Amino acid sequence: MLARGCRWVLILAVVLLFAVAPAISQPDKADPLPSWNDTTPKKAINDFVAKVTKEGSPDFVPVADRVAVFDNDGTLWCEHPMYVQLAFALDRVKALAPKHPEWRTTEPFKSVLDGNLKGVAASGEKGLAELIMGTHAGMTVDEFEVTVKDWLATAEHPRFRRPYTECVYQPMLELLAYLRANGFKTFIVSGGGVEFMRPFTARVYGVPPEQVVGSTIKTKYVLRDGKPVLMRLPEIDFIDDKAGKPVCIHKFIGRRPVMAFGNSAGDFEMLEYTTTNNHRGFGLFVHHTDAEREYAYDRKTEFGHLDKGLDEAPKRGWVVASMKVDWKTVFPPKKQPK
Amino acid sequence: MLARGCRWVLILAVVLLFAVAPAISQPDKADPLPSWNDTTPKKAINDFVAKVTKEGSPDFVPVADRVAVFDNDGTLWCEHPMYVQLAFALDRVKALAPKHPEWRTTEPFKSVLDGNLKGVAASGEKGLAELIMGTHAGMTVDEFEVTVKDWLATAEHPRFRRPYTECVYQPMLELLAYLRANGFKTFIVSGGGVEFMRPFTARVYGVPPEQVVGSTIKTKYVLRDGKPVLMRLPEIDFIDDKAGKPVCIHKFIGRRPVMAFGNSAGDFEMLEYTTTNNHRGFGLFVHHTDAEREYAYDRKTEFGHLDKGLDEAPKRGWVVASMKVDWKTVFPPKKQPK
Repeated sequence: MLARGCRWVLILAVVLLFAVAPAISQPDKADPLPSWNDTTPKKAINDFVAKVTKEGSPDFVPVADRVAVFDNDGTLWCEHPMYVQLAFALDRVKALAPKHPEWRTTEPFKSVLDGNLKGVAASGEKGLAELIMGTHAGMTVDEFEVTVKDWLATAEHPRFRRPYTECVYQPMLELLAYLRANGFKTFIVSGGGVEFMRPFTARVYGVPPEQVVGSTIKTKYVLRDGKPVLMRLPEIDFIDDKAGKPVCIHKFIGRRPVMAFGNSAGDFEMLEYTTTNNHRGFGLFVHHTDAEREYAYDRKTEFGHLDKGLDEAPKRGWVVASMKVDWKTVFPPKKQPK
Repeated sequence: MLARGCRWVLILAVVLLFAVAPAISQPDKADPLPSWNDTTPKKAINDFVAKVTKEGSPDFVPVADRVAVFDNDGTLWCEHPMYVQLAFALDRVKALAPKHPEWRTTEPFKSVLDGNLKGVAASGEKGLAELIMGTHAGMTVDEFEVTVKDWLATAEHPRFRRPYTECVYQPMLELLAYLRANGFKTFIVSGGGVEFMRPFTARVYGVPPEQVVGSTIKTKYVLRDGKPVLMRLPEIDFIDDKAGKPVCIHKFIGRRPVMAFGNSAGDFEMLEYTTTNNHRGFGLFVHHTDAEREYAYDRKTEFGHLDKGLDEAPKRGWVVASMKVDWKTVFPPKKQPK
């Protein structure tokens, strides 16, 4: 039995413990990265975190500056056989087609409705932009959020037959939690639409909406039936990709990151910007090398193309994590059906 | 003397206490708002916070949704006799003039150098934009940050003879801390330049850089002498004012706030957007009524103009806090010279 003062201290400790407990589970102290094999990338991550969190060390980074940025598509979740947001857009074309009879004869919508993915691809970037504008604009931001949530709740990955939000990488979930436990703020910095990610990032990654940076379309504040709403306009605001990533990091986060994680050419400048910080920086590419458990691709692919990054990683001191070699598991265990 | 297990618990409690201690002091539990008189605004704030934080109450708001947004100029710090950022721009014109001989004959720079403030005002919005572009662009974001920090460290308010970062409102500092202690995330949403605020908001307001939303100019990622930098371009990206505030709130924060604090016409839509949230919303205008301790202005002023907000506050249920009536103190105590 504890003494009276001691009980009070215990209660305080428990209250404080709950006050700091994040939504996502805490990492295991003995091995916070159990889904990583004991190969170079895991050692590099552990060594770096030990260095920058050791007070008095020349590499020490104060907590306020501990910013870690993560690409989403191909870095945190699966981006093949196509970007998840593209799968969403294709499904939206089918769902909205009855209201758009003109789509039956207009590209790229016609190809989508005909199930002709080559035709969609042939429409190029312009076609993809039209696809996004046709399916992602013209509603309020609240309506769009509901649509995304509903879709994510029912859509399945065509190969893995589970929700896209379960086709996330277990080693990266552990890494997010591990960095947060070491005082890092974790941000997503993705070429994907910010409003497509925010509906699930808190639940799945433990990253709250304001720490999600992505591509944006313009919105406008209007009164609809006397109620103020934000309408999504069919106009791109900013593409958060390649050299746009450092621009967005500065605009949204306001300081250079200390660690950056990506997997494609779109992440090159983000890693470059991060690893030329005044304090020590860390960059890592997830390399898709595992056709059996996930996919194998790098230099020749439509989604998640990576070449210069692979070539330059060694001389820039960036780590390349091979999914096949360095990851013990790829996806989290399947959830029990309710 | 504490028992062995009890000491361990005490150590844990202390460690946890430090782990959650913010940079800014914690509010006093007995009266977290001591610089507010016991008048309507203080009661309204206390009642609202009690309602939305009471689990099981119909007005309960989960912690993840507890977002409070604050305008900066005139709401958190003094904006008279002119916006602080304008005082900064005028000082920059003087500092940069030797490198710009053409400014001696070009408006609005000529008026600034002649000390002719009416001439500056006569140049209108176009002139002000030229002033900002001439002094805020053409350098890297890191260089600009150093310039802002150096200026804030030495510049003084012309009437109060203390640094601008001490011409902040003590009642609002207490309010920021009080809301954070009640699970709110506090954000700044200001018409001012985001890069002019971020260098001091963590230290002065306890608001980290990524929770500061403001007007932006475009930047570009370039390699300078082989080192990647972000250059500030002489081009406005977005003005975070009036109907632009809800747009920025959505873009940067990703959800509707629950509480909004402003003082001018530029904040009207922010309060409107916040108080038509699905859950209960709270809006408050700081009303500058105290010529003796600060300034008295509302309908007729260049800086911090407020009219429609005053007229509509009663029917919309917004609180108007009179600086003279409702604030016990205005500024924090002067710091002892080191």
